[in-house]
Amino acid sequence: MTHPVLDRDLLHRLMDGISAVAATPEGGVNRPALTHEDAQARDWLRQRFDDLGMRTVIDPIGNMFGILDLAGADAPCVMTGSHLDSQPFGGRFDGAYGVVAGLAAAAAIREAHTKGVFKATANLVVCNWTNEEGARFQPALIGSSVYEGSLPLADAYALMDASGITVRSALEAIGYIGDGVAPRPKAYVEMHVECAPELEHSGKTIGPFAGYWGATKIRAAVRGMQAHTGPTPMERRRDALLGAAYVMTELRALVGRAADVLHTSVGRIEAYPNSPNCVCSDVIMFVELRARNQVVLEWAEREFRGIMERAPAKAQTTGEILHIEYRRAGDFDKGLLDLVERVSAEQGFETMRLHTIAGHDGIRMANVCPSIVVAIKSIGGICHHSTEYSEPHDVEAGANVLLGCLRSLLLT
Amino acid sequence: MTHPVLDRDLLHRLMDGISAVAATPEGGVNRPALTHEDAQARDWLRQRFDDLGMRTVIDPIGNMFGILDLAGADAPCVMTGSHLDSQPFGGRFDGAYGVVAGLAAAAAIREAHTKGVFKATANLVVCNWTNEEGARFQPALIGSSVYEGSLPLADAYALMDASGITVRSALEAIGYIGDGVAPRPKAYVEMHVECAPELEHSGKTIGPFAGYWGATKIRAAVRGMQAHTGPTPMERRRDALLGAAYVMTELRALVGRAADVLHTSVGRIEAYPNSPNCVCSDVIMFVELRARNQVVLEWAEREFRGIMERAPAKAQTTGEILHIEYRRAGDFDKGLLDLVERVSAEQGFETMRLHTIAGHDGIRMANVCPSIVVAIKSIGGICHHSTEYSEPHDVEAGANVLLGCLRSLLLT
Repeated sequence: MTHPVLDRDLLHRLMDGISAVAATPEGGVNRPALTHEDAQARDWLRQRFDDLGMRTVIDPIGNMFGILDLAGADAPCVMTGSHLDSQPFGGRFDGAYGVVAGLAAAAAIREAHTKGVFKATANLVVCNWTNEEGARFQPALIGSSVYEGSLPLADAYALMDASGITVRSALEAIGYIGDGVAPRPKAYVEMHVECAPELEHSGKTIGPFAGYWGATKIRAAVRGMQAHTGPTPMERRRDALLGAAYVMTELRALVGRAADVLHTSVGRIEAYPNSPNCVCSDVIMFVELRARNQVVLEWAEREFRGIMERAPAKAQTTGEILHIEYRRAGDFDKGLLDLVERVSAEQGFETMRLHTIAGHDGIRMANVCPSIVVAIKSIGGICHHSTEYSEPHDVEAGANVLLGCLRSLLLT
Repeated sequence: MTHPVLDRDLLHRLMDGISAVAATPEGGVNRPALTHEDAQARDWLRQRFDDLGMRTVIDPIGNMFGILDLAGADAPCVMTGSHLDSQPFGGRFDGAYGVVAGLAAAAAIREAHTKGVFKATANLVVCNWTNEEGARFQPALIGSSVYEGSLPLADAYALMDASGITVRSALEAIGYIGDGVAPRPKAYVEMHVECAPELEHSGKTIGPFAGYWGATKIRAAVRGMQAHTGPTPMERRRDALLGAAYVMTELRALVGRAADVLHTSVGRIEAYPNSPNCVCSDVIMFVELRARNQVVLEWAEREFRGIMERAPAKAQTTGEILHIEYRRAGDFDKGLLDLVERVSAEQGFETMRLHTIAGHDGIRMANVCPSIVVAIKSIGGICHHSTEYSEPHDVEAGANVLLGCLRSLLLT
């Protein structure tokens, strides 16, 4: 029996094809979730599913599944994939690579199956999850969270972007609100770019994530009072933006005081009324705390709550926690971790166990079935930026390891 | 000869009338320049001009002039007025009071003129300047700056709001791009609410501004690099929002170090890409420095430039000054100051000489003709807020003083 063989040219053609959808002059892509550009990427994927003889299923939250029937309608399935949405002016590989690697692996498996040299006992599914990024709509991982069951569909539909457009109306506008029944796999493997510099520093090729950091995402407000930036005496001002500035500088200082590695950020800020001549009355900050160590993560949250009590007061403003979303640190499936390492070794690739700090749909899938996310190198660790890059040989290595893993999972 | 007499009921009816245009539930108004709501206020004013038998002239930047012909087409004119645009969710009195007081004074003068008991040697003009506030479009004082000649019309037309809508297209959209020739007065008197607590603290009624503070308005950027808020190592981040936070806290600290009174603010902030999961690449701050003392103002600018060199570096980002607009401190016309004090005394109102910290169209008019801005009490000094308030008896006092000044100016 012959192994399915990856078509490298197809892999790179697919990568180039999706990279051309909403390409930016800087070399990245701009496909925030459920925009016209995301719809173009989805249309592109649906065409690829057709090309590969895969049946397309779209579920009510817009998750897309391409099903390659290898073992009959009643057989179990194995799933791979990632997401095609991007950050605003984000990179080409983040998400898209996992979908493309899945498509290339599916093409190889299909060819071997058609030739009769590969007899699978399960079907193969390649998926594209809705709004992994959480850029346009918060939270991130909406599609896989609905699929997993942790986010009710009605709640997901009601989420709004900054313009007040709901997920539901955005899905309807692009025609990707489906009524398909999503397949439930027996195993999930997701390829992704690392988004960090560890593989590059170590010189290793394949980085299976043994686990994932916890993340606490907080929407926090500073409340002051709108006033004239001219005559209002300085000592009477209650400047919410100044209060937020004190919060942000103190938040950053937590990093140096934490007992173990801690990442902090404020990526989004909304200021009201945001007029040059008005002292801001209200500022909303989107805060993230991330740590591998759950104790550190909980310490950081307590410290942040303290900052929200103290720091705004320096500007005669008050702090308010509006919303907290917790993602506890955890581990991926040990059996799949072993499988990735074994397949990589068979193919001559050195591996390095990593922990992912970024959120991935595979984290949600870990609650559905044995699941893992596997990284290839990100040059310079650059991610969420148009210059995000992974080299062709790494792109191939990852797809080959995925193919080897899927082959094994489809046979057992 | 009988003096023109103010109709108090009319004054309050006018104040109530304009307050109802784009009224907010909190008691303020929401009429940013050249919006649909501003157009409603303009339509309201045009109707009032018609009611009072005033000829309406609209110039190419949308400034509105209502001309009361008292002395024939070739006679000089005296001008009063202010602006009907507001801050987002701003107060009822800021701007509107000056227009309303002008209308009420015009009504009294017209009645006396019609009765033949008041023989003016000049005509009276009540005006409404375009975009005094500078909330939607920067800079502030667009209409009076074009009128004065310091801002070329073409440059003003090209200014854009945050959505990319130009002043020209916004003017066209509301139908207020005129071709009228604006009258040029021999004197300009503008009534305004104080927007500060000095009159209230002193117990005086009328506050003629002897002069105006200087203001230096700076658009400043912090440049970093877009990155993932998760895996990007903290020590490699170049977080433009964090850099901006350091700038804002250091800017505030200048106030305590200045040799004389200094006001500082960042009223508007724009962060890019402003996604919760992205380290910000770029942040733009709208900074204001204001001082009566020109030496302090220039010291503050030098200090701010130093902050922009140092503070962003703490976040591995860089500072950049994009644009600076200077308004030097200056004095209003001494003759008009004496007139306001004399008329107030005749009417039994105590006066207090003030300096305005806020910008006013009267500052631009000071370069056109003898000009002054006169304040009435702002309760609590509150301004640019929906609870901005001036008491009825102060509203009347100001209109009476305006009427007395106009009477004198129209006779000489």
